[in-house]
Amino acid sequence: MDAMGGDNAPNMVVRGALIATKRYPQVRYIMVGDRALLEPLIERRRRLRNAVLDVVHTEQVVRADEKPSTALRSGRESSMRLAIDQVKEQKADAVVSAGNTGALMAMSKFVLKTMAGVDRPAIASFFPTMRGETVMLDLGANVQCDARNLVEFAVMGCAFGRSVLGLTNPTIGLLNVGSEQIKGHEALQEASDRLRNSMPNGQFHGFVEGDDIAKGTVDVVVTDGFTGNIALKTAEGTAALYTKMLRGTFKHSLLASLGYLLAKPAMMKLRKRVDPRRYNGAVFLGLNGIVVKSHGGTDALGFAHAIGVAVDLAQHGFLQTIKSDLEELTESVPATPIAPRAAVL
Amino acid sequence: MDAMGGDNAPNMVVRGALIATKRYPQVRYIMVGDRALLEPLIERRRRLRNAVLDVVHTEQVVRADEKPSTALRSGRESSMRLAIDQVKEQKADAVVSAGNTGALMAMSKFVLKTMAGVDRPAIASFFPTMRGETVMLDLGANVQCDARNLVEFAVMGCAFGRSVLGLTNPTIGLLNVGSEQIKGHEALQEASDRLRNSMPNGQFHGFVEGDDIAKGTVDVVVTDGFTGNIALKTAEGTAALYTKMLRGTFKHSLLASLGYLLAKPAMMKLRKRVDPRRYNGAVFLGLNGIVVKSHGGTDALGFAHAIGVAVDLAQHGFLQTIKSDLEELTESVPATPIAPRAAVL
Repeated sequence: MDAMGGDNAPNMVVRGALIATKRYPQVRYIMVGDRALLEPLIERRRRLRNAVLDVVHTEQVVRADEKPSTALRSGRESSMRLAIDQVKEQKADAVVSAGNTGALMAMSKFVLKTMAGVDRPAIASFFPTMRGETVMLDLGANVQCDARNLVEFAVMGCAFGRSVLGLTNPTIGLLNVGSEQIKGHEALQEASDRLRNSMPNGQFHGFVEGDDIAKGTVDVVVTDGFTGNIALKTAEGTAALYTKMLRGTFKHSLLASLGYLLAKPAMMKLRKRVDPRRYNGAVFLGLNGIVVKSHGGTDALGFAHAIGVAVDLAQHGFLQTIKSDLEELTESVPATPIAPRAAVL
Repeated sequence: MDAMGGDNAPNMVVRGALIATKRYPQVRYIMVGDRALLEPLIERRRRLRNAVLDVVHTEQVVRADEKPSTALRSGRESSMRLAIDQVKEQKADAVVSAGNTGALMAMSKFVLKTMAGVDRPAIASFFPTMRGETVMLDLGANVQCDARNLVEFAVMGCAFGRSVLGLTNPTIGLLNVGSEQIKGHEALQEASDRLRNSMPNGQFHGFVEGDDIAKGTVDVVVTDGFTGNIALKTAEGTAALYTKMLRGTFKHSLLASLGYLLAKPAMMKLRKRVDPRRYNGAVFLGLNGIVVKSHGGTDALGFAHAIGVAVDLAQHGFLQTIKSDLEELTESVPATPIAPRAAVL
């Protein structure tokens, strides 16, 4: 655990870990950060003290606004880097950080390396939908993507859906501006052709549109990192707008306030269902190791959820699932190119 | 008015026009479509009968799934095409259609032509935000855009904000995956440089992110048609998900239902505020004429809103505003290129 990443670290991280010790009593933690700050926080929490295997000391921290390249070069002793090193050295099964996303991706790629058969790692997370939950990727690791990247994202997203959502055959959709076969740019057309040819029958749904994310039309929504990041934040922004408007509505009159009081237990359930903290914990897919990124501004409860995502992935043999799925994909690609650029696969 | 476009045309269109006659008593209509269907619908509504100048007869209709190129070639006698022709022939100040978006754009470009100084027209609409309303463009006319297109969208979006939202100096943001100067792809970087140099002080806000749309950080959000379309539909999908969940919440228990009854007047206000029909009416910017596209699945109230958008644009000299703003932009571009590809402007 990068104990120093995030707006309210290390306090938020330590309290998050404490919540996680209750949920996952079998899990043990290595905390990386300033020992002088961390030990007093851990010492006074008995349950956590028992779950912490080790505190790895460092005073260096990657700043929230640091460029990834700078962090990579001069952050060799940072809490983020040393936390990733724990995974590399097989002392830990996963790393969780609420620090700088770009730096975390750059360091993770450098230290853990990209999985064989993967061109570029991606960031995935899940979303609440009308039918349950949907995985979406890439959420911002790759601003521009080609067909090969999109196909790999689909395979990795499927493995993620199997591990975290427990689905046997997750369905996949490519995010586009229309569901007709002719829509969108070239990389999308090509990725669609390849997925149609390489995926088991019925698993590839075809193109989906922005509103299909919340509808839960498919289990895995695949897109480039630019579009995915904007869709994610647009959904978050819209949700926040609704929450704010709803709050305003109940303060509108005395009757409305009374109405709120009566509906409160039901409202709390709704609130819990859409609580962004429940969806905290984005996963870096395609690396030789499990890396989970928490929102920098989350609180202890949100951080505990990110820890939960890491626990799920580690326990469900996620890395092995991705690996064998990628091998299967390589085997299923026909010898004759199915599209002009298919040869690069 | 293309009286035959949309899922429930011509009934929906005629009833929409009837609502509009009450809101804008000064406006007159030319209805294009099947006279045998239209005349009985108009005849029995006195107020509408008085507002309809003419019914232009045709039996040809552009299908919802027709390819734009096919519609352009073989739809010369369609209600959509003849309605656009009314604007070209200066018989009408604006055209409103709830038909096939791609066909409407292709025909509008062909008949009305792109404005001098505009490379590609864009689709714009407004969104509810925490601060009021925000214009976003392009919403799907151009899947891929270069810096020049984005700069032109910014200028046209400003003119739209002035005409429809009544803002004196609308602020502009470029949609990106981060607000830092270094984020995003090349076209965004270049467009940002150009806008910073050509816009009056303070008007160009810089990069904005997905959540800034609902926050209302800027008055005009500029993006390419791929991203804009997905952001629009993601926001719509999230809004629909919330509405559905909220409905479920109030049905959750007897107390919650009672709570709803008490809060109902306030809830109705909220519902009205976020009613998608209120935001119906996307505008095609950059053409020598006003073209408003209504959602195909809207009802009469939604269609009346789309008519309202057309009325606003026509009354506020929108075409003239865009024209002079574009001229100003051309003048303000410095003689020495401000970025490698600036010379194409």
